[in-house]
Amino acid sequence: MEKVRTIVLSKSVFEDNDREARELRESLNENGLLLVNVMSSPGAGKTTTLIALINRLKEEFRIGVMEADIDSDVDAVTVADKAGCSSIQLYTGGMCHLDAAMTLQGLRELGEENFDIVFLENVGNLVCPAEYDTGAQLNMTILSVPEGDDKPLKYPLIYEKCDLVLINKIDALPYFDFDQEKCRQNILARNPDSEIISISAKTGENIEEAAEYFRKTVNRLKENLKCQNKTIK
Amino acid sequence: MEKVRTIVLSKSVFEDNDREARELRESLNENGLLLVNVMSSPGAGKTTTLIALINRLKEEFRIGVMEADIDSDVDAVTVADKAGCSSIQLYTGGMCHLDAAMTLQGLRELGEENFDIVFLENVGNLVCPAEYDTGAQLNMTILSVPEGDDKPLKYPLIYEKCDLVLINKIDALPYFDFDQEKCRQNILARNPDSEIISISAKTGENIEEAAEYFRKTVNRLKENLKCQNKTIK
Repeated sequence: MEKVRTIVLSKSVFEDNDREARELRESLNENGLLLVNVMSSPGAGKTTTLIALINRLKEEFRIGVMEADIDSDVDAVTVADKAGCSSIQLYTGGMCHLDAAMTLQGLRELGEENFDIVFLENVGNLVCPAEYDTGAQLNMTILSVPEGDDKPLKYPLIYEKCDLVLINKIDALPYFDFDQEKCRQNILARNPDSEIISISAKTGENIEEAAEYFRKTVNRLKENLKCQNKTIK
Repeated sequence: MEKVRTIVLSKSVFEDNDREARELRESLNENGLLLVNVMSSPGAGKTTTLIALINRLKEEFRIGVMEADIDSDVDAVTVADKAGCSSIQLYTGGMCHLDAAMTLQGLRELGEENFDIVFLENVGNLVCPAEYDTGAQLNMTILSVPEGDDKPLKYPLIYEKCDLVLINKIDALPYFDFDQEKCRQNILARNPDSEIISISAKTGENIEEAAEYFRKTVNRLKENLKCQNKTIK
């Protein structure tokens, strides 16, 4: 029996991705499900960070993961093994990003009604995923210390779009010329409202702080939903 | 006065990129100019590696650099400063890759007749640049230790396409779980003819070995050209 289900995504038939994304986001809000679009360079630590976060959050929330990859199911198997949560693999068929229709296909397969939080691990790429709204309510990116503090200068769009930036691999700071303060300024120059948290997914440093961010975001979503339901009644 | 020239690339008008690339490659061979397409994830060390290599090679060869970026001219200025060679900045206007026509625009601006080697630093992205032949005779990628030894499993196409893979940041090996032998096997599984050289652009380790690879490649190109010219006479 295969360890994780694998979905081969078909190309979007919808021409208007922005509308599709908006409709998906509204439906997620109505169902009290937080979808998090996780983006980064290849090797910045998306999977390791998700495992660390999920292990902090899984007692409180029902969590699912969708792993988008061009090839291989390394990540979905790793997440299923190490975080013990529901995980599916999305094959993009060579595509360099996910759009809203592809995201929706994945959610349907995962069974969106069973979760409070679904993490969508996008293709490792700082360019194309930033150009396509997946419908997620929360966009985050991970910038790892070895990549350098200048990345927000060179890949501006992704930093404009992200609500949360995790600076990962801070355990490796002594090994690299990386100026945390300069990095923060570069991120904030792209989006002054960014939440920035420095972490080490490997050692666990500050993972609790990041988990708390997600806790608050899900709880705010559920509160909003309660208020809306009361208003409707 | 601006430090480096900046070219804003226009979208390709050619529908057949493969043909365009083939024609560019033939013309480069006829002119004895080696064009090297340098690809990697963001932050793998393309610019630092180029500076280290150019400083080894610049007494023997006339070297030019084209820095493709979505935004910012950080790299072109750095290369001009630290390697003291001709460098131009190519703005891709948000495009995630270069094609042959864009490459040709850059070469024309740089003045292709003045060089023995031109390095084209592609957009930091493991997905899209691998799908477009730029016309370069040599495709290389840099995989840095912090990214992990599984990258060839997850981004197969770029490893299939590359003649040369530099494993960079080996000075950081003690800090990361990175199995060099497994990485070599993952690369060779994608392309058994790959040349693989482990380097540290930061400390200079094995840069001479990599420089020797380029020396041989340029000299082979010049030899071929001589033979062809003799045959024609």
